[in-house]
Amino acid sequence: MTSDAPAPDLPSALAFAQALIRCPSVTPEEGGALGVVADALKQAGFTISRPVFSERETPDVENLYARYGTKSPLLVFAGHTDVVPPGDEGAWRHPPFAGETEGGMLYGRGAVDMKGAIAAMLSAVLGFIRRHPDFNGSIAFLITGDEEGPAINGSVKLLEWAHKRGERFDHCLLGEPTNPHNLGDMIKIGRRGSLTGAITVEGVQGHVGYPHLARNPIDGMVRLLAALKAAPFDTGTAHFDATNLEITTLDVGNPATNVIPGEARAVFNVRFNDIWTPETLAAEIDRRLREAAGNEVTYRLDLEPTNAIAFLTPPDAFTGFVQDAIEAQTGIRPQLSTTGGTSDARFINSYCPVVEFGLVGQTMHKVDEHVAISDLEGLAAIYHGILMRYFKVAATK
Amino acid sequence: MTSDAPAPDLPSALAFAQALIRCPSVTPEEGGALGVVADALKQAGFTISRPVFSERETPDVENLYARYGTKSPLLVFAGHTDVVPPGDEGAWRHPPFAGETEGGMLYGRGAVDMKGAIAAMLSAVLGFIRRHPDFNGSIAFLITGDEEGPAINGSVKLLEWAHKRGERFDHCLLGEPTNPHNLGDMIKIGRRGSLTGAITVEGVQGHVGYPHLARNPIDGMVRLLAALKAAPFDTGTAHFDATNLEITTLDVGNPATNVIPGEARAVFNVRFNDIWTPETLAAEIDRRLREAAGNEVTYRLDLEPTNAIAFLTPPDAFTGFVQDAIEAQTGIRPQLSTTGGTSDARFINSYCPVVEFGLVGQTMHKVDEHVAISDLEGLAAIYHGILMRYFKVAATK
Ligand SMILES: [Zn+2]
Ligand SMILES: [Zn+2]
Repeated sequence: MTSDAPAPDLPSALAFAQALIRCPSVTPEEGGALGVVADALKQAGFTISRPVFSERETPDVENLYARYGTKSPLLVFAGHTDVVPPGDEGAWRHPPFAGETEGGMLYGRGAVDMKGAIAAMLSAVLGFIRRHPDFNGSIAFLITGDEEGPAINGSVKLLEWAHKRGERFDHCLLGEPTNPHNLGDMIKIGRRGSLTGAITVEGVQGHVGYPHLARNPIDGMVRLLAALKAAPFDTGTAHFDATNLEITTLDVGNPATNVIPGEARAVFNVRFNDIWTPETLAAEIDRRLREAAGNEVTYRLDLEPTNAIAFLTPPDAFTGFVQDAIEAQTGIRPQLSTTGGTSDARFINSYCPVVEFGLVGQTMHKVDEHVAISDLEGLAAIYHGILMRYFKVAATK
Repeated sequence: MTSDAPAPDLPSALAFAQALIRCPSVTPEEGGALGVVADALKQAGFTISRPVFSERETPDVENLYARYGTKSPLLVFAGHTDVVPPGDEGAWRHPPFAGETEGGMLYGRGAVDMKGAIAAMLSAVLGFIRRHPDFNGSIAFLITGDEEGPAINGSVKLLEWAHKRGERFDHCLLGEPTNPHNLGDMIKIGRRGSLTGAITVEGVQGHVGYPHLARNPIDGMVRLLAALKAAPFDTGTAHFDATNLEITTLDVGNPATNVIPGEARAVFNVRFNDIWTPETLAAEIDRRLREAAGNEVTYRLDLEPTNAIAFLTPPDAFTGFVQDAIEAQTGIRPQLSTTGGTSDARFINSYCPVVEFGLVGQTMHKVDEHVAISDLEGLAAIYHGILMRYFKVAATK
């Protein structure tokens, strides 16, 4: 069907994925996973650094930076080896850290998010270098152990650390699971921003039999929330959906049915597009609340600090290489999307254009997380195809 | 100032109140309090019954019924000797069960709700009988130990029990604390009803990044609650305030700011006047919710069974005697009111006209509950004045 699929001489992505899954690297534990990556890259001639970052009140976290070559351009493969906890291990069909296969599937925590993608990167890069050791450029791996956790001692610091050492990235490919259904569905070329805030309405507690002596904060809260949701924030932009606000919780916690409570608290989260910055959005939210509250509702708005700005990597030649490599392998021309949650791409975006493409996300963070073995090898072939195009290497027979 | 104040030869209401407060009768414990009442009444010639009522899954509770005389009319003094828990005893200026006095005040749990009133009843009745042993009528005491608790083994069963024994009440005086500020402010001649319900809105849980795959139940809840409070239920009646609905709590309990919750739950309580029955009110609430929900909000309405109907004892000669006795003692013509919470008067009302008058309620259920000793003796004089008027006894020098 396609010109460069399969890439028959790539090392097994499955074998790498199994080795990685067998490392219990639940954030912040390294669990041996960065060691698996380091060993494979060292054998291929990469220079390896394993910086450990610290910050008060969070655990130290190990990270990895590896580079092959000294020439430009420098293409970076980015990702994380840490995984979310498996939850109740007894609920898993296959143990979460066993790396067992069954029916063409590889099971385990991290199979799709994103040890499987890192395995595919290793497979693609090692196969590429073996055949083209003197290609015209450099390849780096930027792998953090703190993406699923507080994300304080991870990508942000690793990017700063590399920048200080003089590393200059030309493009980055981040291996988060981007496909909703099938390998090849979707590339992410940006992400919406995220802003979280809490609204506290103060009332006056009292007895339901004497409402004139009390002021029910729930009435004020209903009014504020209705106003907050009354009109859309925008209708979307060229590459982004409309900004959307969700009230994620609303709690009073009053067990007494004969008592008017004294306070009500709601939390909201906004996923916003590139029309807004956190600051302009905060101002608009504040305006809506103030207008609805008038002099009658006493409230407080507390916004969480956010580093999740909305960003877009405008489609360029690199984006085209990624799309072409995907189409060559899968027959699907992937959609360019900015949907979904946040990712470390928002940090990488400050240093170079970043595109995200990985596995199918359906089972990520769930019990029995698993990946089709054919997707693992297919993703390796796609990453290999991107390398071929990016470094303009003629396909060999 | 007045014709029958003070009634100088009444037994000390303070002494009875101290004896009662020293019995730790937190519901469902009798704590000796009914024994204090029984001893005093037995000495005055009352026939005493101490029925104990039981029901599965609630503690057994002791109650008291006592009667003096066989003639009509039969005037009943009603009340409860159980008290709410003292909470943190260390926070009290005077221990809650010590019955200490300081600066003209008697301190202790139950001082105003309502051991103080029972003490005043004993003082008034014992003084009255000593001077008029052959008055033309009968006096009963209907005292429960389960008013502040589940109220299952209390007044409801005691009233049935007395009725089955052939007791027929002509009028009842219930000693709940009815005065907002000063002794004499207010008589209660009825109470609003109370209806409690829960609204559960079902949504579809999801990730805030994918709102089109979820349905946020908080949006639906805000809509339903706004509709529920949009218009008043009525504007009040001759003796009643307007019906009032309060949302007492609203809880989602979603700790994750990136998750759209699956369910939201609110609880409301309505205090309603004599326009409504629980059934007609439930129908109106259901109508408002259905109209607001349309086909877009999936909700469930669960109403708690209620025995708290709205009731009124239309002012009659007895009400006048109570007002006159209060005015004679205090110089204040008391207001006839139906405000505030519910009381056992709603049960007594099925058997005879009932009027409530007691102490000043400000410190009831609070730390450092206390009563002015002058109010205790003043209330005894008022109850005595009611007896004089009700049984048409000429005042003696
Ligand atoms: Zn991930
Ligand atoms: Zn009471």
